Amino acid sequence: MAQLETQKPSVQPFLPVGSVQLTSEMKACISDCMACSAVCLQSVTYCLQKGGKHAALDHIRLLEDCVQICKTSADFMLRGSPLHVRTCAICAEVCDKCAVSCESMADDAVMKACAEACRRCEESCRKMSKLA
Amino acid sequence: MAQLETQKPSVQPFLPVGSVQLTSEMKACISDCMACSAVCLQSVTYCLQKGGKHAALDHIRLLEDCVQICKTSADFMLRGSPLHVRTCAICAEVCDKCAVSCESMADDAVMKACAEACRRCEESCRKMSKLA
Amino acid sequence: MAQLETQKPSVQPFLPVGSVQLTSEMKACISDCMACSAVCLQSVTYCLQKGGKHAALDHIRLLEDCVQICKTSADFMLRGSPLHVRTCAICAEVCDKCAVSCESMADDAVMKACAEACRRCEESCRKMSKLA
Amino acid sequence: MAQLETQKPSVQPFLPVGSVQLTSEMKACISDCMACSAVCLQSVTYCLQKGGKHAALDHIRLLEDCVQICKTSADFMLRGSPLHVRTCAICAEVCDKCAVSCESMADDAVMKACAEACRRCEESCRKMSKLA
Repeated sequence: MAQLETQKPSVQPFLPVGSVQLTSEMKACISDCMACSAVCLQSVTYCLQKGGKHAALDHIRLLEDCVQICKTSADFMLRGSPLHVRTCAICAEVCDKCAVSCESMADDAVMKACAEACRRCEESCRKMSKLA
Repeated sequence: MAQLETQKPSVQPFLPVGSVQLTSEMKACISDCMACSAVCLQSVTYCLQKGGKHAALDHIRLLEDCVQICKTSADFMLRGSPLHVRTCAICAEVCDKCAVSCESMADDAVMKACAEACRRCEESCRKMSKLA
Repeated sequence: MAQLETQKPSVQPFLPVGSVQLTSEMKACISDCMACSAVCLQSVTYCLQKGGKHAALDHIRLLEDCVQICKTSADFMLRGSPLHVRTCAICAEVCDKCAVSCESMADDAVMKACAEACRRCEESCRKMSKLA
Repeated sequence: MAQLETQKPSVQPFLPVGSVQLTSEMKACISDCMACSAVCLQSVTYCLQKGGKHAALDHIRLLEDCVQICKTSADFMLRGSPLHVRTCAICAEVCDKCAVSCESMADDAVMKACAEACRRCEESCRKMSKLA
């Protein structure tokens, strides 16, 4: 049992009730940003190993842009900053561009999974950016 | 159902099999680092709101140190970098110091939860740092 | 001579000609973002030491927001990412808000210096965001 | 004059005297870390453009490791954290490995410049790590 759990770790990144007030929508968005950032960072390593079009500058750079803006958006929300609506808006835009780049290689299961993480994060962030 | 899921979001930050090879121990450590980083960042906001000893420089700075080194360690592992054993060693050390600081206020449920996230991350990182 | 240089270190963060093409305007903006980020991070420690209104949540959080978005903007430019116009736009906005917060304590020489770094960065970033 | 300044921007990232106490040695180390981080990040883009051995996973990953640990070390010092001796020790180690990788392509002027930034940062960080 314990072993099973170790094999499918998931992140429980929130403090108990009574601390910073995060809505359930904001928690979902933070989770999507953290997951997207981690997935894109793993994808950089995967794509460099693959080489060829996977390792093209424009593709790797979009992945790196996405890693960083997702972290930034997650952190603005975790701090409870009112400016998170701004970072979420640009995060949605970067995720969209990164998803498009991954979808162009979607015959590759890893790129497909990466595109899905980007699309999920894009949708969450777009919702947050409209709650201003 | 979908609603329930939204209320208890957890992060699934890993790519499918076939991409970068992360052992289950490494995945657990990455998850613990990501959770600890997020929890400590929320704690900074909580502690500044509280004021008093919660907002003392040494305490807030340890939380900030912990946020950053946990992210750094997680990223070294996500990239598959062999140098993660080094970042995990210092991460364990910073988590220990941050846990001690939070435990000194453990009558506060939020600080207790933060200390627990730090201890979990410390243990995972110490294990990783010995696998070199 | 060497000693004098050590006492007034400045950062020379650019690669020689022949590498990534950064315009002189972009280099100036990167420098302003890096300086603003470093100054705001030092200000967090200074303000927590001071306590009182200096250590208020809204002020410290704006400083932290500014630290992170300045780094993000600098990195988008250093990577040569076309999306830097987006990060620069939000960076200008965050710098403005952070400057206002610091200016409200401008009888304090450190807060005045921090406000100036924010204003310089705001201006550079606003220029960059219009070059799209 | 103003134009010349714009063409050779340098970063002045320190607060005036009276704020956080940073020794001149620490300021030099912060500057070296910030410069090395920025130079390595530009090098990633340069190397991906070049392709071939420049874009090999091990080389790009070392550059990315170096970018991140240099930022982390700089930030620990900027916060005035006593734990900076630990981050500086690992930073020196990562910079050394990154320098070796760049030196193996030192017939390329950009890689040579990157190696030099790494060596300068390594030396500064090694000094700081011994001041504990």
